[in-house]
Amino acid sequence: MKMNRRTLLAAASAGSAAAVLSPVAMTSNASAQASTPGGQAPAFYRYKIGDIQVTSVNDGVFRMPLSDTFVRNAKKEEVQAALAAAYLPTEEMTIWFNPTLFKTGSQLVLIDTGMGEPKGPVGHVRPNLAAAGIDTKSINVVVISHFHADHINGIRNGAGELNFPTAEIMVPATEWAFWMSDDNMNKAPEAMKGAFGNVRRVFKGLEDKVKRYEAGKEIVTGLTAVATPGHTPGHTSFVLANGKDRVFIQSDVTNNPHLFVNNPNWHVMFDMDGPQAEATRRKAFDMVAADKMLVAGFHFPFPATGYIEKAGSSYRLVPASWNPAP
Amino acid sequence: MKMNRRTLLAAASAGSAAAVLSPVAMTSNASAQASTPGGQAPAFYRYKIGDIQVTSVNDGVFRMPLSDTFVRNAKKEEVQAALAAAYLPTEEMTIWFNPTLFKTGSQLVLIDTGMGEPKGPVGHVRPNLAAAGIDTKSINVVVISHFHADHINGIRNGAGELNFPTAEIMVPATEWAFWMSDDNMNKAPEAMKGAFGNVRRVFKGLEDKVKRYEAGKEIVTGLTAVATPGHTPGHTSFVLANGKDRVFIQSDVTNNPHLFVNNPNWHVMFDMDGPQAEATRRKAFDMVAADKMLVAGFHFPFPATGYIEKAGSSYRLVPASWNPAP
Repeated sequence: MKMNRRTLLAAASAGSAAAVLSPVAMTSNASAQASTPGGQAPAFYRYKIGDIQVTSVNDGVFRMPLSDTFVRNAKKEEVQAALAAAYLPTEEMTIWFNPTLFKTGSQLVLIDTGMGEPKGPVGHVRPNLAAAGIDTKSINVVVISHFHADHINGIRNGAGELNFPTAEIMVPATEWAFWMSDDNMNKAPEAMKGAFGNVRRVFKGLEDKVKRYEAGKEIVTGLTAVATPGHTPGHTSFVLANGKDRVFIQSDVTNNPHLFVNNPNWHVMFDMDGPQAEATRRKAFDMVAADKMLVAGFHFPFPATGYIEKAGSSYRLVPASWNPAP
Repeated sequence: MKMNRRTLLAAASAGSAAAVLSPVAMTSNASAQASTPGGQAPAFYRYKIGDIQVTSVNDGVFRMPLSDTFVRNAKKEEVQAALAAAYLPTEEMTIWFNPTLFKTGSQLVLIDTGMGEPKGPVGHVRPNLAAAGIDTKSINVVVISHFHADHINGIRNGAGELNFPTAEIMVPATEWAFWMSDDNMNKAPEAMKGAFGNVRRVFKGLEDKVKRYEAGKEIVTGLTAVATPGHTPGHTSFVLANGKDRVFIQSDVTNNPHLFVNNPNWHVMFDMDGPQAEATRRKAFDMVAADKMLVAGFHFPFPATGYIEKAGSSYRLVPASWNPAP
């Protein structure tokens, strides 16, 4: 029997279609079981920036029903079309979480922390760090990009204890000033009160320990903070450089890239200032595209690295190819 | 300091550029060390086809200097442009190897075997199976797509012992007939004699054990063999089906997809019959594109799954997004 579309389609279903293929193919495959031992592979991924070993550490994936307002300025059907174009489910939003770890000099640095405690499909930074052979006590510096829960909650575990007890915690000075202002909290819309409360819960007792950093400076050897406001007032990205190599750690310049790289004019519901976030996005992407700079995206699909190219007035993401032997 | 192209570029090099950014940034990053413990993550990846758990198992990656004849009918500069477009090194060819494992009913089935013994960056199927919790003795069936070394050598380890001692080995009847013919071996060009010798080395003593299968049939519950000749005379692909789900396991319908999905008219040096391989490639890709069928590619970048779309008279690969919780 030759390969043709009919035979491939016929192979789609057991039973009647299988009979078309071969009399010996009548065995039902209804008994197939997903009983191979174990679950998914540990989701950490190592790559090099010059002599620096960088590790993407996945915190998991969150799936939420796709609401009409997930993208504030696009119709649900348009969002679904973008998801379908990426072969993703169209009735839910898929959001990945990927902190970045790197060693520079004697410092082991983690950028953003994930949700802190394994709970279903999210909160897996600590087990993935363990799988990568990283003791959480060996992390010297935790750098925070902004104060949303998926970035800061992992500072503590479910019991409220510090996950990285010996690490210095560095936060954007602008972000700290915004969220710690009682004035801002009091005048915030009701829907944002929870976020203010969460920030204060996480940082309670750490007020004197937290180091506030300024954008535009090298805050850790090789790591330069870049102000990328809009998503939040103090939202920060980073350039990690060594030798001639660089990676732009974009934090939340885009959420799911299949939506917001391809449609940079779309405003995700999490952007506090949509138009400013869009302007930041276009500026950042124009630069990384011009320089063919590697980009690490907190919300990119693991292993969360790729290249962004101009595509007319929009952009596209070319995922980096997996390197088994970096 | 605001984000602009100059600040990102400045962050590229330590020292003088860092001084532009900040006086406190003068610390050299020359001391950065790649001393984070451990190497790359184990490279296995699980996904579901209906109720069947499928696992991509990476055997590693091979890098060879890019020769003028790697693509028989394209100039080296054209090939380099295609590699550059995928952000891959342009002076070498990068080739990934990814056997596929799945459990169907009571059978644990491995399609293709890799190189057999860890040797630098290749031969890592056994350690990656171990990382996935798979005992090689629990594999009941080994299905071979064709008789090139990277697919069959893993039948044995470096000492010549069987890697999957209890498995039935299934091979394409057409492939067996071609390579086992003394007539074909004797009339083969000198450059191919080694391949004939390797086939006979691997299968020596297994002649009665090996089961020869016909294309167009369901050869294992849920797995239909599809004749895809050209790469070799008996080269075979597979459709694995369960419920409404299917994956097209394309074997070597393309080598590195960044070259031969985007340029289906290019003939890789490993294709024994380039024009026939091209016709097979176009036919297969037209079908999977029309059906939006998931494709697993032995030589795709790990985790080796994606979707192929028509792009004019050519195609493009959309890599599947990593699912941490399948």
